[in-house]
Parts: sequence; structure tokens; C-alpha cells
Amino acid sequence: MNDLDALFRPASVAIVGASGDANKVGGRPLAFLLRAGWSGRILPINPGASQVQGVPAFPSLDAIDGPIDQAIVAVPAAQVAPVVEQCAARGVRALQVFSAGFGEGPGASQAVPRLRALAREAGMRILGPNSLGLFNAVDGFFGTFATALDGAWPRAGGIGVATQSGAFGSYFFGMAQQRGLGFSHFVATGNESDVDVADCIGWLAADPSTKVIVTAMEGCRDGRKLVHALRAARAAGKPVLAMKVGTSEAGARAAATHTGALSGADRVFDAVLHDTGAVRADSLQALVDAAYVASIGPLPAGRRLLVVTTSGGIGVLAADAAEASALALPPIGDAALADLRQVASLADGRNPVDTSAGILADLSAYGRIAARALDDLEVDAALCFLAHIPRNAAHWAQLRGPLVALRARHPRLAFAAVAMADAAVTADLEAEGFAVFTDPSAAVHALAACAPRAARLPPADVRAAAPVLGAVPATEHGAKRALAAQGIAFAEERLVVDAEEAAAAALALGYPVVLKVVSPDIAHKTEAGGVALGLGDESAVRDALAAMRGRIAAARPDARIEGFLVARQLAGGTEVLVGTHTDPVFGPVVTVGAGGVLAELLDDVCVRLAPVDEDGAREMLHATRLGRLLAGFRGAPPADEAALARLVARLSQLAWASRDRVAAVDLNPVLARPDGAFALDALIVPHGVTE
Amino acid sequence: MNDLDALFRPASVAIVGASGDANKVGGRPLAFLLRAGWSGRILPINPGASQVQGVPAFPSLDAIDGPIDQAIVAVPAAQVAPVVEQCAARGVRALQVFSAGFGEGPGASQAVPRLRALAREAGMRILGPNSLGLFNAVDGFFGTFATALDGAWPRAGGIGVATQSGAFGSYFFGMAQQRGLGFSHFVATGNESDVDVADCIGWLAADPSTKVIVTAMEGCRDGRKLVHALRAARAAGKPVLAMKVGTSEAGARAAATHTGALSGADRVFDAVLHDTGAVRADSLQALVDAAYVASIGPLPAGRRLLVVTTSGGIGVLAADAAEASALALPPIGDAALADLRQVASLADGRNPVDTSAGILADLSAYGRIAARALDDLEVDAALCFLAHIPRNAAHWAQLRGPLVALRARHPRLAFAAVAMADAAVTADLEAEGFAVFTDPSAAVHALAACAPRAARLPPADVRAAAPVLGAVPATEHGAKRALAAQGIAFAEERLVVDAEEAAAAALALGYPVVLKVVSPDIAHKTEAGGVALGLGDESAVRDALAAMRGRIAAARPDARIEGFLVARQLAGGTEVLVGTHTDPVFGPVVTVGAGGVLAELLDDVCVRLAPVDEDGAREMLHATRLGRLLAGFRGAPPADEAALARLVARLSQLAWASRDRVAAVDLNPVLARPDGAFALDALIVPHGVTE
Repeated sequence: MNDLDALFRPASVAIVGASGDANKVGGRPLAFLLRAGWSGRILPINPGASQVQGVPAFPSLDAIDGPIDQAIVAVPAAQVAPVVEQCAARGVRALQVFSAGFGEGPGASQAVPRLRALAREAGMRILGPNSLGLFNAVDGFFGTFATALDGAWPRAGGIGVATQSGAFGSYFFGMAQQRGLGFSHFVATGNESDVDVADCIGWLAADPSTKVIVTAMEGCRDGRKLVHALRAARAAGKPVLAMKVGTSEAGARAAATHTGALSGADRVFDAVLHDTGAVRADSLQALVDAAYVASIGPLPAGRRLLVVTTSGGIGVLAADAAEASALALPPIGDAALADLRQVASLADGRNPVDTSAGILADLSAYGRIAARALDDLEVDAALCFLAHIPRNAAHWAQLRGPLVALRARHPRLAFAAVAMADAAVTADLEAEGFAVFTDPSAAVHALAACAPRAARLPPADVRAAAPVLGAVPATEHGAKRALAAQGIAFAEERLVVDAEEAAAAALALGYPVVLKVVSPDIAHKTEAGGVALGLGDESAVRDALAAMRGRIAAARPDARIEGFLVARQLAGGTEVLVGTHTDPVFGPVVTVGAGGVLAELLDDVCVRLAPVDEDGAREMLHATRLGRLLAGFRGAPPADEAALARLVARLSQLAWASRDRVAAVDLNPVLARPDGAFALDALIVPHGVTE
Repeated sequence: MNDLDALFRPASVAIVGASGDANKVGGRPLAFLLRAGWSGRILPINPGASQVQGVPAFPSLDAIDGPIDQAIVAVPAAQVAPVVEQCAARGVRALQVFSAGFGEGPGASQAVPRLRALAREAGMRILGPNSLGLFNAVDGFFGTFATALDGAWPRAGGIGVATQSGAFGSYFFGMAQQRGLGFSHFVATGNESDVDVADCIGWLAADPSTKVIVTAMEGCRDGRKLVHALRAARAAGKPVLAMKVGTSEAGARAAATHTGALSGADRVFDAVLHDTGAVRADSLQALVDAAYVASIGPLPAGRRLLVVTTSGGIGVLAADAAEASALALPPIGDAALADLRQVASLADGRNPVDTSAGILADLSAYGRIAARALDDLEVDAALCFLAHIPRNAAHWAQLRGPLVALRARHPRLAFAAVAMADAAVTADLEAEGFAVFTDPSAAVHALAACAPRAARLPPADVRAAAPVLGAVPATEHGAKRALAAQGIAFAEERLVVDAEEAAAAALALGYPVVLKVVSPDIAHKTEAGGVALGLGDESAVRDALAAMRGRIAAARPDARIEGFLVARQLAGGTEVLVGTHTDPVFGPVVTVGAGGVLAELLDDVCVRLAPVDEDGAREMLHATRLGRLLAGFRGAPPADEAALARLVARLSQLAWASRDRVAAVDLNPVLARPDGAFALDALIVPHGVTE
């Protein structure tokens, strides 16, 4: 038995603080359990009553015979700790703590860590404190005081909800219930002294009655566990629809590198969802719509959609929505197009296929057109726009049969019908396996949310083979040497200490050259006046070195100057920002974007959990506008993408394997040229350093 | 009487092709008119019947005594022209042509222009052909065959719909009707032989029963008329909610300039909406939501919103949505915050104001908190998140009174309530002036869509004073001279013919210099190898000139070379793309964006109808990421924004005033520096030239 089973499907539940008033926190779960006719053993604890709401009560936990799987704790905050200790002594396996007043947010008070310690010692699991509770609609176990259940009793179904905030989760529940969706389980983790959202996702991933997982979280304490849980859901073929709620971005994280500043906690959360194939929803309605599609029929096995429409304008809308949500509309072939024009004279379009409103004259043709298009295509989902047809009994009588037959012929596809339809027609279509929407855009977005995404963590051997960095060098020059030893390519350069040596180095490297200060005290050389570009001859080099000394002496008088780097100035190519940093929750991440002024200006970077392999790195290159630059923008020759992908993968592996000592690495810029990818700068930040 | 009155509110209507079968196109409007109990004179024309659907019929138009305001034409396409001629002869003032089969889209066949000519000659107005018709729900005039009315009879209300596509418009009608919205008028213009969407928007702008205008169009033939109509709606305080339907972008417009290619028809349509204060919706649901808000209560007078919420997580969601739709959430002050913490111990937040779910213990506090926050702020709209409260009778009894009182105290604000609420509570709240939503994000977006935007066309004197360009010069050099004469600043340069002159010019201007080919045959010099940058000394200039001759001789052997420009190479500053081109429908437009590789890479430009004044130009500078660059990005000194705005305004005025001969002007780049804005390149394209 999984250790959360005692929470989600106990055989017995004690209610500490059980009340005879069904409107009180301690009375509500008892009333719900009675209403649901739960088959388990209900054990109200109330020292002053022989029964509570008609159920025989016990003066204390110790007065109960036999095992107690779960205890619900609905007592004032000050009494929680003693009750939890009693539960531990009594061998209760799991606890729900409804009591609030422990401060907002996980770990906001000492009481929460104390509960956590108690749970660990006793080997029991604790949900809460400040939990709204949970329900299991499959078995009828309703251990919650949610007022949402007053207005809307849940129907059993395939949606599992794991939410941190009870208010947010129960509002989603209300919306989804209003839409007619059915639930397997609902759990609100509250202050997460022990059980967190990741635990619950993991449990739902293994639960046979759960088909889709909806989750809302404010923060995450254990990133590794969350990634593991999301991957488990993915492996089980269950879409995870996620919302991030709250302002975790405001949490002060020191950004020691330029790249780090561009890769905030929200971007890392996106990276986690991407790498695990989960989907982020940006509105409750989108979450409900996606859960609805997932609960109707088979999920799309890929991202290819056919749209059949009676209106050209609606077809364009649907195509726009498909593009926005990364669904492909593969075009039907010439023969199929010719055939469907035979079927109906006004039918046109390769996908969307437009039957035109003229189809009303013979609605059986709608089915023939859709069938011909589906036979011609490999798609994963089909959207049928039916306008007002289902509202006209005569029309609907003609169309229903062909539609249902079409659905039956393609049992593995997801189908959406978009139409004005009354409740009876909607229920009929849903029973036949159509998700029914009125808004075409919403239908497309919901299908897209349920379709699988590329989700890939690198194979284990990438981790095993990842090179570890030795001691962390303090200067650019040291960082470059250390990284070069690990296979990162740099532009050729020399370390010099004065103008004489600089001139000699420049002559040897070839003009034009770049001059940069080397100082362990200066991380941002450009801002400190420590970079001179495009030096074309000896006098330029000498002048630049003198001017640089002057600027730095003025701007940063305490900075130790170890010398200057003279480097060959590489011309052409695309500047790329490549860096890694350590997210406090999810560990090392790697960031790639267009370099130079672009990354900051665009705020357009791709973040992924480190390490990535070369395929993953190549995908990152194309996830932002950088992709267009690398391909050879405005007549420029294409960059050596393979070399750049190798560099990114290599750096990500290095950062991951060296995560105990390296907090961040910044290569800004890397120059991606037709003949390779060369880092022009390097900064390695050890742990514990902030600016 | 407005010349469209005979269409929208006739006193008499003849139906040519009237049918006794209420399911036929010629029978439906008659059935609808009878059902609506329309008070006007119904005149069925049917040579074979003495009555149609119980209404006395006439053998022909000529058999009718008295004036005929309108005729509905529901006959096969081939018979339309003779019928229209009979109507003209009979003095019918307006026609609706339902008949289809004239080809798709405006002007797709000769029949449509012929109808247009007939309308002009006879001084009558024609709606259609291929029109779904129109209805006027205020007066009960239903001149349409829309099947949408079978399932959903319209309620009279404030929404006016002007749509080109009947299918699209009637689907919107169905969705809005399902939401309970009321309509003033609905009109589908079809193939637009005469009356177009712009005409109808103009009529609805002046119609006293119309409060908000919803429009969907595929294309537009007369841009000036549309702009005029949208401005009239704006002046009347009526929001226009617009969708563009169809693939007009595919219409092949030759892009003679770089800027033109970035400013496609869709961007110009956005510019039209911006300049007229209209709102573009990207889904039907968004259109319905906005129309709903507009039909409930007063429209927001500005873009400032207060959010009061029982859930912190929902507050964050609402704040995100507000940011995405450009609504401001002004924060309450310290005193107000202290006060509301007094009212409820867990209340917190400056805006969103979070009452916390603890408010359930005393719901009267909700009203006090919201009232205190509203008293402290100047806002235009308020959103109250109420979670499940309306579903609990006891809770709702406590909250309804304070909410309604709050609404009454702020009669000029728009209010939205977001909650799980049954139909009775929803109707009650609507009657009290709350728009009721379940999805918080949808509520925010809908409020935003109804809030006014900055909408400004330049004052008439800007047009009057706009300078006109003389003959269009063929080379960069000529274009620069012509534009410089009109006050556009350029970097200093000389025209030379050989290396000797080039060296002398460079010496006079000061190194480094730029060298560019001057040829009437080469518009894109960079691509042709006709630009050399950063020439630091005499030998570099000589070498570059020789190499350039070679490259051009190889790449463009037929190009006439008039010489070369030697220009001082300005360092520093921000590259800005500034250009104008002539949209085939809306005329001259001006485009601004980050220059160099950025504009194309980002696809991030701002397009406005020309001319703009300096204020309008300054607003354009900040509409894209360019604004951040100009302000002094990463430690760079800020650019002379006033000079740049003057340049943009000047160019836009020049392009507008010279629209008869100038098709496009491209200044790419303009260098915006602290000491001014200097164009580095210029291309003027006369009409009739494409590449």
C-alpha cells in the first residue's frame, strides 16, 4: 500500500474536533461522509458527546479499537501539536490538519516544521495544516470542509486535482463541476508541512481512476520530486494541466550573472513543464476546457488537426488558434480535394476544409466530405464546426448519423464539435465521444493542451559522462582556460600586462583585436569601461590600454588588475548568449538566447533543466528568435549549429556535474560562425557569491 | 432621413420571391416579420398567389399603391438584375439581395459591379447580394432568412452587429443570444455591391438604441469611409469591437521597401483600430464577453481597475490578466491599507485587495473593505471576486446588500462580479449593474476591451501644413537631398566618382567613413555588396571602393553606377527603422521600429495611419521595444527622442501630402543619438514601381 493511500482511500477515519453542527469545520466532513454514504469506518472524537450527527462518538483516540488509517484534525491551532502527538502514539497512518493560523505560506512559522518533524519521526503522513482537505469521489470519501460542495456535489470521473491553495482549487472545482466534469480525487495541500503537491501528483499518476491531472501551485520546495512526479504522470499517459499561482518571482534571488537575471523562477517553472511534457494554462477557463476534452474521449496522440467547417471565416479563426497553440493542419491532397468538390460544389480548402453553408441543402454530404478528408490525412484530432445546425431538428436529424459514424470510424482520434447546441444534443454528442464547444478558438486550444509535447530529459549516460569542473577560477582568463580544457572553444587570445606586450600580442594574433581588463573584482567589464573593441593598429591598442587603465582607476579604484587580454576580434557570425545558473528549487538550468543587446531587450531566452544532450540543445536553439539568426539571416551564411549545440550541451553537463561548487556560468557572447562556435567571454560564479 | 434608414427601419417592405413555405429563403423573412408582429406594411410579391402566409400578395411591384421603402429580393441570381431594375423604376429606396451565386467575395464577378452601378444611377441603396439580411430588434423588423433565428429569437438591447459574413455574424449572434445579450440591429453585408460594413457602422454610430458595435469583416474597399465610421462611433461613446476574418494578408501586395514588407495589411488594420479607438478581439468568446460588459452598465471611462478578492491566488491571476490587457491597478495608500486591516485581520494587499477566505466569518466586512479601497482610489472599474459565496444562501444574504450599496455609491464605474452563481443570482446582479463572470481572466479582458484607448488622429492643421515632395529622385543621394530640404537630418556625406575623390572626401569628413554605391538600379545596397563600413584610413577607402566595383560588376552587371557616397560614420546611438508606404485601402501609413537586423528579426514595428503629429510619433516610439533602446539601454546615454519624433512626424506628413506620387519612403536606419536623429540611408519609391 502506497503511503498516501491512507490519505486518499482510508478504511477508517477519526475526526478530532467532530461537531454536531454541519456548518462548522469539524462538522462538515462528517456531514459529507454521511451524505456520500461512505462505506468506511467513521470515528468522531468528541469527549462531551456519545454521538455526533447520529454517529457513535469516542472520547479520545485511545478509546477506539482497531486500526485508524486516518485522522482529520479540526481543532484550534494551539491544540494541533498535542493532537498530532496523540495520533502518532496511537499509530494513525495519515493526518489531515484543517486548522489554520500557522501563518501564510509553507514554512511561515515554526509550527509547520515541527509538524514535519513529527510526521517523519512517527512515520505518518500529514496533509496541511491549513488544508481544505481532500475528497475521493470514486470511493465516496469526503474528508473536506469545502463550501464548494454545498452548491455542487461532485460527479465521479477522471479528473484528479492537486492544488496548494484550497480557495483556488475549489473555485476550479466549481467551474469544472458546472461544466459537468467528473472527478476522481481532489486534494488541497495548504501549508505543506509534509505532503506536497508533487506527492499528490505522483499518487494520482499511479491511480487507475485518474485520467487527467489538474494542478495549481504557488511554490515548490522539492524540485526533484516534482519533476519525478510529472514524469510519472507523463509515462502513465496522463496529461498534467498546471497553473502557477502567486508571486514567487518576487522572492529575492540574487542574480550573479546576466543570464541568471533573464532566467527567473517563472521561466524555470516553464522549463520544468516543458521537460516533463506538462501544459501550463493561463486562465481557469483554459484549464476547465482542457480537462473537459481530456475527460470526453481519447487524447490526441500527436499535434495534427483536421478542421471541417461550414463557414470559411470560422475556419480561419480555427487555423489562427491552431497556429497559436502549435497544432499543425496538414493539407489534404489534390485527389481528396477534387473528390470533396464532387461531393458538394461549394466545398473547398485543404485544411480547414470548408463545406460552405450551402451544405444545408444536403447535410449527408458533410459526413462524406469529412470522411474523405480524414481518410486522406494522418491526424490526431478533428474539429467539426456545425454552426446552428444542431438547433434545427430537421437539419440535425440529417447530420447526427453521419457524424456519429465518422467518430466510430476513427476511434483513436480526439473529436470536437463546435456548434450552438442545447443541453440534450450536447449530452448526446459527449456520449458519442465529441467534446462540444461553442467557441472555436477555445476548442482548438483545449485540444492542443491535451496533445502530447516533446518532453525529454537526457538519457542517463549523458549525466554519467558529464565532466566536472575543478576549482572555480576568479577571472575571465582563468574561466576560459578551465572551460577550454573541457572542450569549449574560445577566440584565440593572450594575457598581457602592459602596452608593450599588448602590441606584440596583437601583431601575433592579427588585427583587429579586442582588449579586455583581467580583474577578479570586475565581473561586468563593459560597464566598468574594461572592454575596447575593433582596435585596428598598434597605436589604437596602446591608446586603448592607457585609456582603459584611466577609466578603471576612476570607476573602480580598488579593483585588482591582473593584466589585460588581447584577443583576435572575430568578425561576422551570430552573437549567442549561453549560460547556466542554479535554481534554488530545481538545481542547474541552462539558458540560450540571442546575444549582445538582444537577449535583454527581447527577454527572449530558452531555459531548460541541465543537463541537456545535443538534441535537446539544438531544440533550445530553435525555441527563440535566435533560430532565425543562426539559419542565416538576411543573406548571412548559416552558422555551425552542430558546434553550437555541442557547446551548449557540454556547458550544461559541466554545470550539472559541477553543481556542488559552480553556481553559474556565463558565456556572453558565444559567436556562432559557419566554422564553429567560439565563446568570446566567460564568467564562472562559485556558490555563495552575489553582487 | 439617413439614406440607410430605408434599410434598417422601413415603413414598408416588398418581398420579391415571397414564398408560402416558411423554411424557404423567400418565406423566412415573411414568417419572421409575422412572428415579430412588425407594424410596417408587408408586401409579398408573387404573381401566382393572392396571399402568401396569409398576407395579401401582389403580382408585381407596379401593382402596389403608395411608396415602397424597401424590397427584399429572394430570387435566383439570374433574375436579380431585372428585379433590381424594376425596383429602381418603381422608386424603391433600398434593396436587400439575398440571392447568392455571384461568386465569393466582393467584386468577384461582373454582376456585383453592375448592381453597384444600378444603385448609383437610381439613387437607391443595395445590401448584398449574398446577404443574410438584417434585423432591427427595436422595431421588430426582421428582413433576414437567418436560420440562427430558428433556435434563438433575439431580445432587444444595445448591441449592433455589422458583419460581412452572414455565417460568422449569425454564429456570433447565437453565442451572444445564449449569453442573454440584447440586440438593436444585425446586418450582414455579403458581397457588398453597395452598402458595406463601414456604412453600417456609421449608421449604428448615430442610432440611439445602439450602445456597442460589434463588427466582423474580411476586407475593406474604402478605408477612408471605415476610418470615418469608426471615429463617429468613438465620438458617440460607443465601443467598437472588431474581428478581422479571412486571409486578406494573402492578397499579393508588392513590397517595394523593407519597411513595407514589415507593415502588412493586418498591421495596417491594427493601426486603423488603434487610431480610431476600436478594439480587436481574437476570439468569438472575447467578442461576446466584451459585448456583455458593454450591455450591462456604464463603460469604464479609463483603464484603471480595482480588484477585491477572497483568494490571493485569484488576485494574482486577475493582476496578470490586467497587465496583459493594459489595465492599471493603482495601489491604495498606507492609511487605506491600515484601515482595511482593521476591518478584517487577514485582509491585505494594495490592489488586488485580498480579503482572504476568512471574510466568510463576517461577510459585511467585504463591503466595508471594498468601499474603503474605492474611496481611496480613482479607478474606472471594479472587479469583485466572490468565489462560491452566491451559492450559499446564508452567505449571500449577508453579502448582497453591501455589494449592491457599493455599486450604487459608484454609479459611474463598471463593475464585474466573478463568482459561481446560479441563474437567479446572476440575473439579480446584472439588474443591479454587475457583469457576472465565472472566469476571472475573461472578466478582466472584457472590462479592458470596453475601456477607452488613446485614439488620436492629428489635428487638421498638421495635414494643412504638410510639405509636398517634388519629383521623386531615383538614387539614395537624390532622395537624401530632397528629404534634407524638408528638414530630415542626415549624416554629412559627399558624392564622389573615383578613389581619388573618395580619399579626399574622407579626409575632409574625418575617419572612419562609410562608402556606398549610388545607382538608380540598386535599391538594396547591402545585399548587392554596395556598402562598406568602418573605413579607418585612406588605403581602406581605396581598397573598399575597388572591391565594391568588383562585387557589383559580378552581382549586378547591368546596374548603372552614378558614383559613390562617402559619409562620416556616426558611432553610438540607436538604429531606428522609419518608413512610410501606401496601403492600397487605407493610404499612406508610417512605420517605426528598432533598426538594423532587429526590425525583421523581431517583427516588432509600430504602424499608424499617416500623417502623425509629434505627440503621435512619440507614442509610436514607445509602442515597441525600441522605446527601451532610446531611453538609454544598458548604460547608454538616452537618445534625443524629440528630434526623432520630429523626424517621424515630418516624414509621415511628407508621405501623406505627397501620396499622389510617392508610394513609399524608407529611412533605414535612422541613428538616434543624444545630439539628434540622423538618417543614414534613404529610399523613395514612386508609384508604379515594384521589384
